[in-house]
Amino acid sequence: MDLNFSSYLLEDAVNELSKLPGIGKRSAMRLALHLLKQEKPHVKRLGESLIKMREEMRFCKKCHNISEKEICNICSSPKRDASLICIVEDIRDVLAIENTGQFTGLYHVLGGLISPMDGISPSDLEIRSFLTRIEEEKIEEVIFALAATVEGDTTNFYIFKQLKNKKIKVSSLARGVAIGDEIEFADEVTLGRSITQRLPYNGA
Amino acid sequence: MDLNFSSYLLEDAVNELSKLPGIGKRSAMRLALHLLKQEKPHVKRLGESLIKMREEMRFCKKCHNISEKEICNICSSPKRDASLICIVEDIRDVLAIENTGQFTGLYHVLGGLISPMDGISPSDLEIRSFLTRIEEEKIEEVIFALAATVEGDTTNFYIFKQLKNKKIKVSSLARGVAIGDEIEFADEVTLGRSITQRLPYNGA
Repeated sequence: MDLNFSSYLLEDAVNELSKLPGIGKRSAMRLALHLLKQEKPHVKRLGESLIKMREEMRFCKKCHNISEKEICNICSSPKRDASLICIVEDIRDVLAIENTGQFTGLYHVLGGLISPMDGISPSDLEIRSFLTRIEEEKIEEVIFALAATVEGDTTNFYIFKQLKNKKIKVSSLARGVAIGDEIEFADEVTLGRSITQRLPYNGA
Repeated sequence: MDLNFSSYLLEDAVNELSKLPGIGKRSAMRLALHLLKQEKPHVKRLGESLIKMREEMRFCKKCHNISEKEICNICSSPKRDASLICIVEDIRDVLAIENTGQFTGLYHVLGGLISPMDGISPSDLEIRSFLTRIEEEKIEEVIFALAATVEGDTTNFYIFKQLKNKKIKVSSLARGVAIGDEIEFADEVTLGRSITQRLPYNGA
């Protein structure tokens, strides 16, 4: 869409908004016009919160999760089990797993998955820093929590090979029919996996 | 979704982003994490363009279109036909009509449509200011360019009644099958309208 802007202020804002993922020119225009109708302090808060986040947020030197300090709250917590590391693709995965309240170990955020199609090689990811952690820290178990895709499997396998000669337990997230889901609507692959990897039932 | 944020900076940014229309907590998180991966000057440009737009943008005192001055470029242009006013709902409609390059008159932006269901009454819209323009300016024709919905029709009719005793020509946008559209795929109402309102054909 070629927009004939009557204002360079609007044009600037729309151009910047449309650089966001999933937001085209039309959506950007809709957002800009919405903001024009809001109170000035409201728009100021939005703009400043984005700038402040980017300026002040850092990435944890150890696990590469977001952090406001050099080492993040999770890595520096004495309550966490430092012998257990969960490997995830993204910061969002950390948040999702933290929200379960079921994981007491540390994380390692790769920042992506190996994908030759997209030109992402192991050296583009935080794999080397992970192997350094394996050398330097007392890690007993590594959990792969990557997507069950070709890229996820490739990345799992690549890292697994590097751990082969080390005395480290390697596990991967359980896959199966989601709790609350109807069996008949589960996809074939997931349902198949949850049969072959069935668990002993103890009546609990 | 209840997010357990590991950072108040991220939480602030996500909260502000999720106030935007059509952006929920999950999308806001996706946008925030995207911004975290961008260069600092890029995020600064985005934030500042939004703040600057809102701080400096005004609405034209005459037509209520967006403007950087008291009276917008369209209203103040000597090239425009000041006897012809097109009534639109929104600033977006002004942009859309301007992009056609086919309209040489002025606009009047209502800022919405009459909708008792949503609690929007005529006094919430720029209708009084429009009637003042009718009194004060030399307007010969008014074009309704509002949506063909119940709200649009109600608004058309409400304004039309106020113009009844004045010597002003009132017209409305032509409705019909869009240019380039297949006849068979046009919706019934539009196709019906384009038959009853058929135009003389002169071979051009």
